[in-house]
Amino acid sequence: MRLIGKEEIENIAIGAALLGTGGGGDPFVGKMMALQAIEENGPVKLLSVDEIDDDDLIVPSAMMGAPTVLVEKLASGDEALKAFNALEEVLNKKIKATMPIEAGGVNSLLPLALAASVGLPVVDADGMGRAFPELQMVTFYLHGVSTTPMVLADEKGNSMVLNTVNGKWAEDIARAATMVMGGSVMNAIYPMSGKQVKASSIYHSLTLEENIGKVIKEAKANKQNPIEEVLQLLGGFKLFTGKVTDIERKTDGGFVRGTATIEGLDQNKGEQCYLEFQNENLMAKTDHEVLCMTPDLICVMDTDTALPFTTEGLRYGARTTVIGIPADEKWRTEKGIEVAGPRYFGYDHDFTPVEQLIRKAGK
Amino acid sequence: MRLIGKEEIENIAIGAALLGTGGGGDPFVGKMMALQAIEENGPVKLLSVDEIDDDDLIVPSAMMGAPTVLVEKLASGDEALKAFNALEEVLNKKIKATMPIEAGGVNSLLPLALAASVGLPVVDADGMGRAFPELQMVTFYLHGVSTTPMVLADEKGNSMVLNTVNGKWAEDIARAATMVMGGSVMNAIYPMSGKQVKASSIYHSLTLEENIGKVIKEAKANKQNPIEEVLQLLGGFKLFTGKVTDIERKTDGGFVRGTATIEGLDQNKGEQCYLEFQNENLMAKTDHEVLCMTPDLICVMDTDTALPFTTEGLRYGARTTVIGIPADEKWRTEKGIEVAGPRYFGYDHDFTPVEQLIRKAGK
Repeated sequence: MRLIGKEEIENIAIGAALLGTGGGGDPFVGKMMALQAIEENGPVKLLSVDEIDDDDLIVPSAMMGAPTVLVEKLASGDEALKAFNALEEVLNKKIKATMPIEAGGVNSLLPLALAASVGLPVVDADGMGRAFPELQMVTFYLHGVSTTPMVLADEKGNSMVLNTVNGKWAEDIARAATMVMGGSVMNAIYPMSGKQVKASSIYHSLTLEENIGKVIKEAKANKQNPIEEVLQLLGGFKLFTGKVTDIERKTDGGFVRGTATIEGLDQNKGEQCYLEFQNENLMAKTDHEVLCMTPDLICVMDTDTALPFTTEGLRYGARTTVIGIPADEKWRTEKGIEVAGPRYFGYDHDFTPVEQLIRKAGK
Repeated sequence: MRLIGKEEIENIAIGAALLGTGGGGDPFVGKMMALQAIEENGPVKLLSVDEIDDDDLIVPSAMMGAPTVLVEKLASGDEALKAFNALEEVLNKKIKATMPIEAGGVNSLLPLALAASVGLPVVDADGMGRAFPELQMVTFYLHGVSTTPMVLADEKGNSMVLNTVNGKWAEDIARAATMVMGGSVMNAIYPMSGKQVKASSIYHSLTLEENIGKVIKEAKANKQNPIEEVLQLLGGFKLFTGKVTDIERKTDGGFVRGTATIEGLDQNKGEQCYLEFQNENLMAKTDHEVLCMTPDLICVMDTDTALPFTTEGLRYGARTTVIGIPADEKWRTEKGIEVAGPRYFGYDHDFTPVEQLIRKAGK
């Protein structure tokens, strides 16, 4: 157990933006909520996975919706708690701790805000090791944990308890309801025993996010190259360097979909890189080859400051470095690739790990 | 208390088709389910409103969705019971009786099927005195009864408990969920105390439907004009007689919307009548005048057999008589007209009662 205070939150927010792979919502909103809750109530207890009991009830708290809406429509803060209370009533059991569903974007920070305001601890783990756009795209689901009962709550006071036959139905029904409820809601979802968390989650996610933030800050303070330090920390690869020349996005079916075009600079001069996203970056390619594909992580960093760009933060003219990071091994299984691989998103590609793609390209 | 057996069901189905005002789903599906349940379990107890206790828990059971889907996608029969069981758990109280939410279409018969299969009585009342397309268009709502907690259940095993700040939110969220869940679901909705049922429902609905069926059958047996007999029973008006020459419908936003055109015959020769519907008939007009408008009832009958047409049953060439029936007084209040009057449906008309429209037209 250790305490998460304001400095840790600042670092986690940087790591969350990077692992958000362009999506997950700008962590800024979640950071401000977490900072305020910690200001008012003191630091949050962070538990490592081995500190929870097998029969503890652990419930991830997450915002669901299109990132552009998340940015425009602030949560009231009550929804997350209302969803938790409703789920405790359904399960007739007290929730012992919360945790992020994803290690990326606003959803890395919101559980910390909830935890600070109600005095719950947070488990240092998550269900993605990155961000993904759909509810069933979590390692909990890969391990057979039921998505439901889940509760959705909006800022107006509407709430819903959902019980579905599988995670894809939960995704489809909750997504449709979310759109009607104003585009974003808070979920209490994937209620788990401590034992299930131990078996199915990706460990140390918040610590990893914090370390990303630290490494970037320290490298800058020491005049080192922060991008190189991040690549070393995460075992990642530099995919492309250039300037954003075009960005198309539209909100469609509850998601933000689109493509960013980056014109090569330096070693990539004369080439174009295309980033395709559905909330998160799914595919990075040039005119000749694929550089990295989901479920591996595609992250866009500011070439000068090394700070990560979210898709909605990306602007014409931004000088960016695109990096690829191997996904957690849980995602590189047959089931993982079926749930979140390129074919699920409609690409006619078999999954190829980023390290193989890089080797093939001779980079 | 009296018993509803197979003969009563046959008559109720005819009345339900008429009061369905074109929508509510073809009662045939509900009739077959009710007949089968009665065949297996015996007749259903029909309670008059004064036979229920003030603190009894009464819950209407209803199918929600576009009528065209209802016809194509048969309920498994389990959904209604699953929804009831889930609602009993939420409210921690046994349901004493069910009742129809609407006196029209498939939803008049489905509560009888549920009641027969689980041995519950049915209250001889409903919340519309007709059919309407949206969840908040019930007299319960006009009297301040909460639409939620409500439960939606589909035939696949998915279910949802909804709690909303008002009935319009329940309608919007449940409608979106229904579309994702395959276009139709069973609801346990508007849970009420016996006292609330007494204050807010329209009485004797099932008996009235049964009497409509009886009157049509008896008139035919006695070589009387069945349409005239129905008009006398319901205090209705003959609006138009003619032949269907065009029918346009599309399923849109969970509803079937469209227009039927009827070319005048006999006393209406040379005129055209246009019926506009959203699941139910909302407006009947000629090129010169409005004949009848929601919330008053617009019903289309076969000129020869007096059997009612649902919108989806209406075909080119059908010889029809359109009748108008004054809505229950609960609908002619300011609140009733706000909730289900012509302006709610986008018409630029103040509500005018059918008897005044007829007088103005000098018919």
